[in-house]
Amino acid sequence: MMTVVKVGGAVVENATSLAQLLDAFIALPGPKVLVHGGGRMATSLAARLGLKTTMIDGRRVTDAEMLEVVTMTYGGLINKRIVAALQARDVNAIGLTGADMNILLANRRPPRDGIDYGFVGDITATDARALQQLLQQGYTPVIAPLTHDGQGSLLNTNADTIATEVACALAQDDKAVRLIFCFEHAGVLSDPNNEQSVIERITPDSYRQLRANGIVSGGMLPKIDNAFAALHRGVGEVIITSPDHLNAGTVFSIAEAL
Amino acid sequence: MMTVVKVGGAVVENATSLAQLLDAFIALPGPKVLVHGGGRMATSLAARLGLKTTMIDGRRVTDAEMLEVVTMTYGGLINKRIVAALQARDVNAIGLTGADMNILLANRRPPRDGIDYGFVGDITATDARALQQLLQQGYTPVIAPLTHDGQGSLLNTNADTIATEVACALAQDDKAVRLIFCFEHAGVLSDPNNEQSVIERITPDSYRQLRANGIVSGGMLPKIDNAFAALHRGVGEVIITSPDHLNAGTVFSIAEAL
Repeated sequence: MMTVVKVGGAVVENATSLAQLLDAFIALPGPKVLVHGGGRMATSLAARLGLKTTMIDGRRVTDAEMLEVVTMTYGGLINKRIVAALQARDVNAIGLTGADMNILLANRRPPRDGIDYGFVGDITATDARALQQLLQQGYTPVIAPLTHDGQGSLLNTNADTIATEVACALAQDDKAVRLIFCFEHAGVLSDPNNEQSVIERITPDSYRQLRANGIVSGGMLPKIDNAFAALHRGVGEVIITSPDHLNAGTVFSIAEAL
Repeated sequence: MMTVVKVGGAVVENATSLAQLLDAFIALPGPKVLVHGGGRMATSLAARLGLKTTMIDGRRVTDAEMLEVVTMTYGGLINKRIVAALQARDVNAIGLTGADMNILLANRRPPRDGIDYGFVGDITATDARALQQLLQQGYTPVIAPLTHDGQGSLLNTNADTIATEVACALAQDDKAVRLIFCFEHAGVLSDPNNEQSVIERITPDSYRQLRANGIVSGGMLPKIDNAFAALHRGVGEVIITSPDHLNAGTVFSIAEAL
């Protein structure tokens, strides 16, 4: 079993929660890949540099200056900090952006409906072979949320999307791929005010009910849609959980649909 | 023949000179490694963030905040920009710091004579095997001037030193290693005001004369000492040149000493 873990900016930006996540991550059996975010740190660096952050539907508008900020923050500070912290745990990590080893090629997103996200990439190709080779050689890839266009430009790319594309690409060779999304809760909650109310299993049928009842809504919907899409594309298991419980949380299943 | 090229910050910080360097770099035959600096860009970012840069004997004092700046600048912005630019030239580059794949382990330099350089590393081990493996697989490593201490901390490390250590480590397996230092002149000049006055070859004997006559002095001395040290440690050829003439310049030889 191979595992791809995606962890958001809020976890990696805090030394204590990062240490907790990395301890849980290295305890996972088998080869693994870590994909990280870092948006809040990018926003903070941008502010210190006098640059305004503009978000549209939760996505960062990335002009040339903001691309420098995210390249420094995601590809530099956060990625290398994680790599050094994994090395200290005797895990031979290697930090990558999509440009490194050409693992994630993307197209710059064209302006749509009057919205230009700037240097934002939509992935067109994932080199699973290069990642497999690293994993087989005992390395643990740590991927920053940056892709490239093959013409010299880096592109800002959503970390959830990268984790999904990487897991799906690895699953094409090896069906036993697990995809874990870490976020601020212990799983999908039936009561947002109760951390104990984790829904243990969501299937396409139960998802329809949860939506109809308004139990899941807003920002959870794209995450869950994404989870099902990954399962349909060959990923064996998708889990949404908090960074300290990588083996528990909400497990997604398409068993009914088969 | 394997080639290690070191290029300083002034070259990589300018889009035109970087493009020129990369075109010359990819034209070199055989497997190659690029080691880059970036000090001026780090100083500029530090200034924008309200941080003062302190240099002692040309070395940057690196406190915790300056370590963040160099990690962002060297490991993020410059390294990834070069990687993306090489990918655009169909060279499958991979950007690395010393923490990635554990290629460069270092000790934090202890305070000496009342001077504490902070998070600055002196290299203790270079993993040539990992680099060889990447080269054999067709990848071109691009190394940022950062090492790590194996305990979770990155360390700022001189790019000339990294290039030398990498070349010497590769030379232990394969004697045919060439080390090229790019800087702002076409080679070691006998007349600092005349770019045509490149000294084509320097041997230990001629070096003694050049020093005695005052033709080489100041900042050139450590570069030349470094070149001879690399030759004595097994590197086949050392060249000091400008980024647009990687195959010409001043060639160092210890032939007389053998």
